Amino acid sequence: MTRIGIVLFDGAEELDFVGPWEVFTMTAKEEGTNLEVFTVSREGTEVRCAKGLRVIPDHSFASAPRMNVLLVPGGEGRKREMHDERMLGWLRERSAEASWLTSVCTGAFLLQGAGLCAGRRVTTHWRAIEELRARGDVTVLEEVRYVRDGNVVTAAGVSAGIDMALWLVGQLWTPALARHVQRRMQYDPAPPYSAEV
Amino acid sequence: MTRIGIVLFDGAEELDFVGPWEVFTMTAKEEGTNLEVFTVSREGTEVRCAKGLRVIPDHSFASAPRMNVLLVPGGEGRKREMHDERMLGWLRERSAEASWLTSVCTGAFLLQGAGLCAGRRVTTHWRAIEELRARGDVTVLEEVRYVRDGNVVTAAGVSAGIDMALWLVGQLWTPALARHVQRRMQYDPAPPYSAEV
Repeated sequence: MTRIGIVLFDGAEELDFVGPWEVFTMTAKEEGTNLEVFTVSREGTEVRCAKGLRVIPDHSFASAPRMNVLLVPGGEGRKREMHDERMLGWLRERSAEASWLTSVCTGAFLLQGAGLCAGRRVTTHWRAIEELRARGDVTVLEEVRYVRDGNVVTAAGVSAGIDMALWLVGQLWTPALARHVQRRMQYDPAPPYSAEV
Repeated sequence: MTRIGIVLFDGAEELDFVGPWEVFTMTAKEEGTNLEVFTVSREGTEVRCAKGLRVIPDHSFASAPRMNVLLVPGGEGRKREMHDERMLGWLRERSAEASWLTSVCTGAFLLQGAGLCAGRRVTTHWRAIEELRARGDVTVLEEVRYVRDGNVVTAAGVSAGIDMALWLVGQLWTPALARHVQRRMQYDPAPPYSAEV
């Protein structure tokens, strides 16, 4: 059994975690993956996300089973969580049992705050690159969708979590399965307007 | 004030609605957009999505204010909802006040079931193309991210809702604003493995 735990908190950015959630839960539907995906918050009670979506997590910090993959989203709430000793302590404790530590967007600040990516190459949302760099113990890469350094995988802003999650499915199972899930979620992205210059 | 209402029901696919939710709520943060985005379900009580995410909607059918844009996601639950007279009747009633009727993935079956896209060109998830075509009163296009026919905009599967929502922001405001939101959500997608063949 592979278990993927997605950490939620007030002010977590919605797409940061629902993108990977969709990728992983679609993977779990495929025969033979033997995968369980769940959300987890401090108390397991209602979380109010960054843009107001209210979500009821599956587990509390205490009830969450052993996780092979930990995923930390970003969002406005990370500004509080990156200094919260209960959050950071829990991440440190539960990361010991995980094969992969992952973040999306400014979730990287929680991994960094917990000391889980010291000395690593990482990335984050483009607006937070300098702030993360200033924290000193990480090498922050820009203009990449995600960075893998050892067992730490950090994605860029918001939508980049989808690409990172698909990549991870390719690592945990096979690229062929990742391609299959990509097709199931019809992920042939075509942003309708050219990028902002 | 522009209001965008996202219809939820048990078995709605998570990314179908959270993709557009992220696009629209990020837009609402921008000065001058004067936009309110909310979720709505029959009773306004907890909804269990297709892959198990539990969400508490902002409004019930009765309490939802007037909507300029109605968005209907798909997911397994649509197989029930597309025949549900309360759902279809509510969509018919509330669509009269809306400027745009939109769906993501198999949400198109609800618009079709409510008679809101008769004679139109539409699209849906690639696996449901033939089923939608068989319903007879629509022209179903394939291999497109979204189709606009008059005030009806239907997106392809799951992730295509993101592209459709960005396009709609460009229509409701300006392409420049859509590009700005796209940059904020760092939507420079790069699927990590080549498409399934």
